[in-house]
Amino acid sequence: MPYFDAASSAPLHPVARQALLAALDEGWADPARLYREGRRARLLLDAAREAAAEAVGCRPDELVFTPSGTRAVHSGVAGVLAGRRRVGRQLVVSAVEHSSVLHAAAAHEEQGGTTVQVPVGRSGRVDAGEFAGALGGETALACLQSANHEVGTAQPVDEVAEACRAAGVPLLVDAAQSLPWGPVGGAWSALAASAHKWGGPSGVGLLVVRKGVRFAAQGPSDERESGRAPGFENLPGIVAAAASLRAVHAEAAQEAVRLRELTERIRARVPELVPDVEVVGDPERRLPHLVTFSCLYVDGESLLHELDRAGFSVSSGSSCTSSTLTPSHVLKAMGVLSEGNVRVSLPVGTEAADVERFLGALPGAVAAVREKLGAPAAVAAPGPGDSLVLDVLGKRCPIPVIELGKVIGDVPVGGTVTVLSDDGAAGLDIRAWCHMREQEFVGEDPADRGTAYTVRRVS
Amino acid sequence: MPYFDAASSAPLHPVARQALLAALDEGWADPARLYREGRRARLLLDAAREAAAEAVGCRPDELVFTPSGTRAVHSGVAGVLAGRRRVGRQLVVSAVEHSSVLHAAAAHEEQGGTTVQVPVGRSGRVDAGEFAGALGGETALACLQSANHEVGTAQPVDEVAEACRAAGVPLLVDAAQSLPWGPVGGAWSALAASAHKWGGPSGVGLLVVRKGVRFAAQGPSDERESGRAPGFENLPGIVAAAASLRAVHAEAAQEAVRLRELTERIRARVPELVPDVEVVGDPERRLPHLVTFSCLYVDGESLLHELDRAGFSVSSGSSCTSSTLTPSHVLKAMGVLSEGNVRVSLPVGTEAADVERFLGALPGAVAAVREKLGAPAAVAAPGPGDSLVLDVLGKRCPIPVIELGKVIGDVPVGGTVTVLSDDGAAGLDIRAWCHMREQEFVGEDPADRGTAYTVRRVS
Repeated sequence: MPYFDAASSAPLHPVARQALLAALDEGWADPARLYREGRRARLLLDAAREAAAEAVGCRPDELVFTPSGTRAVHSGVAGVLAGRRRVGRQLVVSAVEHSSVLHAAAAHEEQGGTTVQVPVGRSGRVDAGEFAGALGGETALACLQSANHEVGTAQPVDEVAEACRAAGVPLLVDAAQSLPWGPVGGAWSALAASAHKWGGPSGVGLLVVRKGVRFAAQGPSDERESGRAPGFENLPGIVAAAASLRAVHAEAAQEAVRLRELTERIRARVPELVPDVEVVGDPERRLPHLVTFSCLYVDGESLLHELDRAGFSVSSGSSCTSSTLTPSHVLKAMGVLSEGNVRVSLPVGTEAADVERFLGALPGAVAAVREKLGAPAAVAAPGPGDSLVLDVLGKRCPIPVIELGKVIGDVPVGGTVTVLSDDGAAGLDIRAWCHMREQEFVGEDPADRGTAYTVRRVS
Repeated sequence: MPYFDAASSAPLHPVARQALLAALDEGWADPARLYREGRRARLLLDAAREAAAEAVGCRPDELVFTPSGTRAVHSGVAGVLAGRRRVGRQLVVSAVEHSSVLHAAAAHEEQGGTTVQVPVGRSGRVDAGEFAGALGGETALACLQSANHEVGTAQPVDEVAEACRAAGVPLLVDAAQSLPWGPVGGAWSALAASAHKWGGPSGVGLLVVRKGVRFAAQGPSDERESGRAPGFENLPGIVAAAASLRAVHAEAAQEAVRLRELTERIRARVPELVPDVEVVGDPERRLPHLVTFSCLYVDGESLLHELDRAGFSVSSGSSCTSSTLTPSHVLKAMGVLSEGNVRVSLPVGTEAADVERFLGALPGAVAAVREKLGAPAAVAAPGPGDSLVLDVLGKRCPIPVIELGKVIGDVPVGGTVTVLSDDGAAGLDIRAWCHMREQEFVGEDPADRGTAYTVRRVS
């Protein structure tokens, strides 16, 4: 049963498993102790640090192991911000960073700091010049992911790092998604990553801080991991993480070519196989294994269930997914359709035949969800002139857009449809629908309940 | 080769290993995801939480998994202090808490809070009445370990918890050392522990916060572990931790009796086998598997090396051990000898024969270190009246006490020896020496360099 959600967590790499088993026997003691078992653990820890540092492209004494990629980001952001507090308290991040970066930014703001979010284009990529323009004399730290976790778009880290260097601002790179494919180039100052994204075990992240970057670890600390990651080291996990990073890097170049072809095929075929689909993310500058698309008139959670029943495990940034009612901040920042969103991220070793099976199953899954949602959920009332008012208050995504699609033909070209909705995703999705359908989004106004979105029929 | 440092880290329990292997296959996916692999991971996580909660004696929704015991303490202390900030900013702890508690207290003080340390008696035990007396209207949190990690002394958690309840102050119990032996009784409010102390894997701690305790998680958080432990869960580790906690509890009662006999034998035999030894810690109210003693005229690091060469892995709280030059804060708070300190903590399954071999090897190891240190390191100069002045400036522990022992006989009863030393441990060790030798410690005064400690010969 194909698992296509490597961007969430990759299955354990065989090398990781092997290394973990060996380290369970050899690496359970405290590496800070002087006796035999402690010395053995210390050797394993030192060797893992050297291997990981070589794979990342840094010095071993610049790299510490943390309990997760999230904690690496939290500690890295807090540590650099505190180290440079005298310079200023401004943090600059892209609008499509992983939630761990945004949560760190929120914590910074709670303590009186400020954050500037650099917007992205429709492909999810920041403009390096725009990012550079956001850096100021008060900027203590800038954060940019190497590649986006939801849509796969690669960011211009090299150019942004150069701009940061010129401005004297350290750049922290969240490399969680791209490190499995190779080291991050450019003159970055700090880097965070997560082992379970590259087939290492969960429970291990890494934080690199280049020599010369001012860093003041926050919160209580101890003598472990250079005072930057307190608590007894997860040594078997660390050993397995380092071993598997080397192993995936050894296979990366070849596997990247192969998976890029498979995702390229998904990018090309999905719009041919399924009507009303938008493939999102940069088509060229992207992760090799990840492709994301959104299906109009579909709710993400139902589609995920249909695909799960058909044997495919994929993810979604839709607002209707899981416990959240707000759409993914990434899709929102890109201004693309959030409904019926599907992220396919292929693990290393994915077979072409499984991708073909997925392409075979997708149209039926989308059609089944659309059919279920097809029953009329609202009636449009005539408004002044050539206009209709569609009341979908209380209806969740993707109903507002489904009903809009049904009635747009009922007004003449030049006429308008006003959608009354209180769904958080409606504004984003109605705009995206207009973009896909080449209709005009006129604007939005507060209503007695919810918001009134007005669309003009232009074709 | 016997490993006698279970209090640092216990070898992996076979049940933990088995559960870990199974969970590597079944539990690598994101438990927050809706597809098959995610649902399977969620089931494993829920089951582990239920098992751990049952073993601890709490509700599953009161328990979260953290990346280590240290992180559980840090998060627990910070969260309760923040949750009760309106009450006050005072933290009350015993003087012999684990460093993770003291580091959390230091971080609290850096942010403007205050800490009160409750002293302990010579056995390392706090007096419940004295602890209760330290609680005030401004006290936001009290922390007390269930048993001490260096000397094994059990603390009066029940009584202190009652006093805290009466004062309306939550009590956080660091149960790292005692949880392997069973749940902690009493009306505590929060509890922290560490899996690798009970034969679980490293990388897993647990934090329990009783319903009704005001708690505000500090730092950036996410949706995982009730917002109290951010970052992707170390699920295989968590599954193994919970399974092994159940397994060790099932064996605990029987094993506690057996190991108590073995440590009782060490307590009794060491002073018979080795001259000038002080066995420290409460002889009755103590952990079953742990015994600590200090050897006069011995430096801890050399003794650890001798014992390691003889095949025994033990630990030490001596000032001369490892990277630190200050003696263990626990031994200091107890006022006992810190030099030549040895902690023996027997892992589950330790054989009586190995303990006998240890008792056989110890006298030779101590004698070897004493012989190396025996060469005169200082000359005493006559002082006014019946007094001698011993200059051991620049000499490290245990030289000051060794030289004091050599010259005390050179003054008549009633005469004094003044020791000039700049070693941080000298004050503690000279006092402990006087206690052991039944001589009088007169006092200490600042000198041009270091401190002058004066001892009167009374026998």
